[in-house]
Amino acid sequence: MAPRNAFYAQSGGVTAVINASACGVLETARKYSDEIRAVFAGRNGIIGALTEDLIDTSLESEAAIAALKHTPGAAFGSCRYKLGSIDEQRAAYARLIDVFDAHDIGFFFYNGGGDSQDTAYKVSQIGAELSRSIVCVGIPKTVDNDLPITDCSPGFGSLAKYLAISIREAAFDVASMSATSTKVFVMEVMGRHAGWATAACALAAEQDGDAPHILLLPEVDFNEERFLAKVKESVQRYNHCVIAVSEGVKSSGGTFLAASGTTDAFGHQQLGGVAPVITGMIGDRLGYKCHWALPDYLQRSARHIVSETDLQQAYAVGRAAVEFAVAGRSAVMPAIRRLSDQPYRWDIVEPPLAAVANQEKLLPAHFIVADGFGITDAARRYLAPLIVGESYPPFRNGLPDYVKLHNAAVPKKINTPFAI
Amino acid sequence: MAPRNAFYAQSGGVTAVINASACGVLETARKYSDEIRAVFAGRNGIIGALTEDLIDTSLESEAAIAALKHTPGAAFGSCRYKLGSIDEQRAAYARLIDVFDAHDIGFFFYNGGGDSQDTAYKVSQIGAELSRSIVCVGIPKTVDNDLPITDCSPGFGSLAKYLAISIREAAFDVASMSATSTKVFVMEVMGRHAGWATAACALAAEQDGDAPHILLLPEVDFNEERFLAKVKESVQRYNHCVIAVSEGVKSSGGTFLAASGTTDAFGHQQLGGVAPVITGMIGDRLGYKCHWALPDYLQRSARHIVSETDLQQAYAVGRAAVEFAVAGRSAVMPAIRRLSDQPYRWDIVEPPLAAVANQEKLLPAHFIVADGFGITDAARRYLAPLIVGESYPPFRNGLPDYVKLHNAAVPKKINTPFAI
Repeated sequence: MAPRNAFYAQSGGVTAVINASACGVLETARKYSDEIRAVFAGRNGIIGALTEDLIDTSLESEAAIAALKHTPGAAFGSCRYKLGSIDEQRAAYARLIDVFDAHDIGFFFYNGGGDSQDTAYKVSQIGAELSRSIVCVGIPKTVDNDLPITDCSPGFGSLAKYLAISIREAAFDVASMSATSTKVFVMEVMGRHAGWATAACALAAEQDGDAPHILLLPEVDFNEERFLAKVKESVQRYNHCVIAVSEGVKSSGGTFLAASGTTDAFGHQQLGGVAPVITGMIGDRLGYKCHWALPDYLQRSARHIVSETDLQQAYAVGRAAVEFAVAGRSAVMPAIRRLSDQPYRWDIVEPPLAAVANQEKLLPAHFIVADGFGITDAARRYLAPLIVGESYPPFRNGLPDYVKLHNAAVPKKINTPFAI
Repeated sequence: MAPRNAFYAQSGGVTAVINASACGVLETARKYSDEIRAVFAGRNGIIGALTEDLIDTSLESEAAIAALKHTPGAAFGSCRYKLGSIDEQRAAYARLIDVFDAHDIGFFFYNGGGDSQDTAYKVSQIGAELSRSIVCVGIPKTVDNDLPITDCSPGFGSLAKYLAISIREAAFDVASMSATSTKVFVMEVMGRHAGWATAACALAAEQDGDAPHILLLPEVDFNEERFLAKVKESVQRYNHCVIAVSEGVKSSGGTFLAASGTTDAFGHQQLGGVAPVITGMIGDRLGYKCHWALPDYLQRSARHIVSETDLQQAYAVGRAAVEFAVAGRSAVMPAIRRLSDQPYRWDIVEPPLAAVANQEKLLPAHFIVADGFGITDAARRYLAPLIVGESYPPFRNGLPDYVKLHNAAVPKKINTPFAI
């Protein structure tokens, strides 16, 4: 059978290692030249497929492709765009098939979180329904670590490492100044629904008294009185208190704590986080001097300090996706299976996309301690191996030497535009 | 002459490398055992001297002292405490001399910024006035880089490197998502009066269009209309806009832009930064989706990614301080003198503390471009060498292996307490 082209796209919020998955896909596809002619990447994710804005990755040098392994962001552009059901958006799915037909695309690789796995699943369905031979493989990615089945999601281990390092470093700062300055430090971390990132901060603590002293998880209803009592106790015992708070912490009424609806002195709407709310509360009620940090995108883009374990897994799922595809497996997603905690061993398994799509894995109850402000040893055993190992990017002039690809467009073959 | 003890203390906001200066002091002092018996550190800075709460560093192992070189924070505790004039606080200065007499302290090393150099200067004066033989040497440190005379301040290079890396990484994130998501990213950086840290972010940009696209420096009056026009231009040209803003940006009326006086939905006072004000303004007026980050203490404690140049300088000023002291030089501060930009060469000179104390070095006008939103090539030449080189800490279980000293107290010899 003649080789066909492949489509690859990156979707949703980026990670420090999603380009390592891209690297795994592209390097592996180049090895299977009997089956895969060229890999066309969607510019800005699935939007690139819908608008026939494809990037010819075969024009990139081997060195540039290899450099993806140490470059954050999404090299081909990502998007926040969710395809609805096939019934609702039949025109969009038909358009995808038209574009894939026009460019002889026989393989569809979609690299993203739960929504993206859902899209990959739907594309596999429409392909089958329209009798188009297209092999669809999802590639897991999300800093939120909320994909089901896979033991962890590529991207999360590096976020976890960055956050645990950052809170440890900030805690050294606060502890050394607490006699006359800041007593409470709050770091706000990603994870609107699932507390994996917040939980990972706890890895910074190894002994009694080590920071962080309190976690505020989105899985646990926030109770102001119990929280303030815990802060007070920490300050009394350790003379300072370091807190990791999930952006998605909610009160028992189900409303987000994050500041909203406030305006600043200029009358502009204030885009707030939860950290200023928490520190405001502590300052008002307990009178402690507080500081807070909001790393925002820094936490999911910190390629300079990724987890080597995470990096290897990100590459491995990209490579496995191509291997699955050329073996004719469709509607699957390479997933990480844990074989043992210590020594940490894992391999790649092959769950169906149908089982992965549109689910959200929260912190299980047995990972959260009784008072809700920390994690259990079971959680620690789960999290610990994911942050192990360093893989530094090359540096030039004191800065990481990240690659920007040429991203040359594949000439269009369809003349009709498509409105997004 | 019989050897005498030395006093060393850390003062003011910490840096990622102030402990490297401590390491330079302690390792060098151990080599001069004919002159220096033991180094007693002040617990929590000068407060430790006033309250006779001294730490016997001679009880720490060589390995622990060496590990200070890769540990952030202030190993002996720092403080925000400024001694007033000798006339105002004669009792405090007299107390210092009493404590130093009681512990046979002949050398006073004070590691800090402008205020701390002022304290060191005053101690040298009172020593002379009271005919006490005490050699006083200041050791420079400040992430703000605002000390005069010295070419740069230890601590700043590492802050600069962290910020330039972080904004480059976040910019890769934003650029890859901007088609359908965030168009504007704002990072708020330290430096209430001087724009050195904000300027350093510009090192991330190497080519036209590279982030950051706009700097908001505290040396330049903020003008909302001109700023918004610049943001719009950047988004139109590059489809995104990355902004570094100093926490100390002020309007032409001289008021800080940083949110103040606002309350959140719970009625608590909101401790705001300037980044949410800026993003609120952009969202309201231009309608772009914005994100913002506030690294706060993370930026000055990020030992995991310090500048090797900065680390060497931090160690060198600690070592030089001891060498100056045993040579009998008092009321001086080791300062860094730049010999050439490229290749970067520097040595240590010996300005008098009187010339260093209580001054603030702002960004000079010729470092700021005409429209106020960026830096000149001259600034770039100055800043570039300061972030060069990496010096990673050792890692254990995926996390930096930072040292915590025993910090055993020197037995007290004075029985009177001293109220701070």
